[in-house]
Amino acid sequence: MKFSILRGTSFVHTLLSNKIKNGDVVIDGTMGNGHDTVFLAKLVGKEGKVYAFDIQPTSIECTTKRLMETGLNSLEGIQLLQVGHENIETYVKEEVNVAMFNLGYLPGGDHTLITKPNTTITALHSVMKLLKKGGLISIMIYYGHEGGTLEKEAVLTMLENLPSEEFVVIKTEYMNRKNDPPIIIIVEKK
Amino acid sequence: MKFSILRGTSFVHTLLSNKIKNGDVVIDGTMGNGHDTVFLAKLVGKEGKVYAFDIQPTSIECTTKRLMETGLNSLEGIQLLQVGHENIETYVKEEVNVAMFNLGYLPGGDHTLITKPNTTITALHSVMKLLKKGGLISIMIYYGHEGGTLEKEAVLTMLENLPSEEFVVIKTEYMNRKNDPPIIIIVEKK
Repeated sequence: MKFSILRGTSFVHTLLSNKIKNGDVVIDGTMGNGHDTVFLAKLVGKEGKVYAFDIQPTSIECTTKRLMETGLNSLEGIQLLQVGHENIETYVKEEVNVAMFNLGYLPGGDHTLITKPNTTITALHSVMKLLKKGGLISIMIYYGHEGGTLEKEAVLTMLENLPSEEFVVIKTEYMNRKNDPPIIIIVEKK
Repeated sequence: MKFSILRGTSFVHTLLSNKIKNGDVVIDGTMGNGHDTVFLAKLVGKEGKVYAFDIQPTSIECTTKRLMETGLNSLEGIQLLQVGHENIETYVKEEVNVAMFNLGYLPGGDHTLITKPNTTITALHSVMKLLKKGGLISIMIYYGHEGGTLEKEAVLTMLENLPSEEFVVIKTEYMNRKNDPPIIIIVEKK
């Protein structure tokens, strides 16, 4: 993998790929256009499981297409759920190794359809419960849209107050870039 | 490598190991007890070069011992220089792929011997000049000691003002940990 910090996704993928192995159970909390779902599916392989969530039908279509094009041996373990991520606990009953979230809107999609503080925080709490010891959650926060700052503040406040005996939380920010670059959070269960 | 964000060094080593290959030229700007020098030496191999800097004689001794114990095939490409890192440009004349800095004091060493803003900033400027396109600098800032905050502020201000056309800079902080956990900076040359 050619690693660069120029793009937040490259940074996140590099870190998570050190943690995900064949057979793992993982969650894509914001399927969007399917980039992260494909990334996760490749790493967990046909013995693993990916649960991907998004309420937008276009997201399921786009991700299905992308998965087909990837040439994976089997899509059996991959569940694309057209359901809001606040319902994660209804669908996932196992311990998970990794969960990924991109907060904001679907790039190239409907910009009025954005993730919202309440459902986002419910989803994060669910995932923190399901997370294995040593497991990771990545959260890319895009906040340049209307309501984005509100969601960012709510999520950061929740994370700052997580008990340090149970979770390590790091926040990565771009220092010399304009136009609201994303904030990247990694949570690890101790 | 078992990756964890619990320790800042694991985080930094994981990111950098995606960038360093056999034969690369790299700098350890703060040799200290030699942990990073050994990490770098292993990755660049016997075709590569490591320039490591520290003014403390104990640092050279400790690092030499550590390198001997590592069972590397050859130590030919490794230069342990008992020289302040503000002199990097006198000793390194090639382009470098990666440079590492730990700012503060040598753990287990003399806590009154700390890195200082002026020489640190001179060293960072030298390394930014020598850095290849796509190359990385890591800077772990420990600032819990006297003078630490002053150095931290000086370094952060310098980095915030780097031209975004030439450098990407990310800052990673622990969100829910007390007792001045380190701040981790990664600089990439565009």
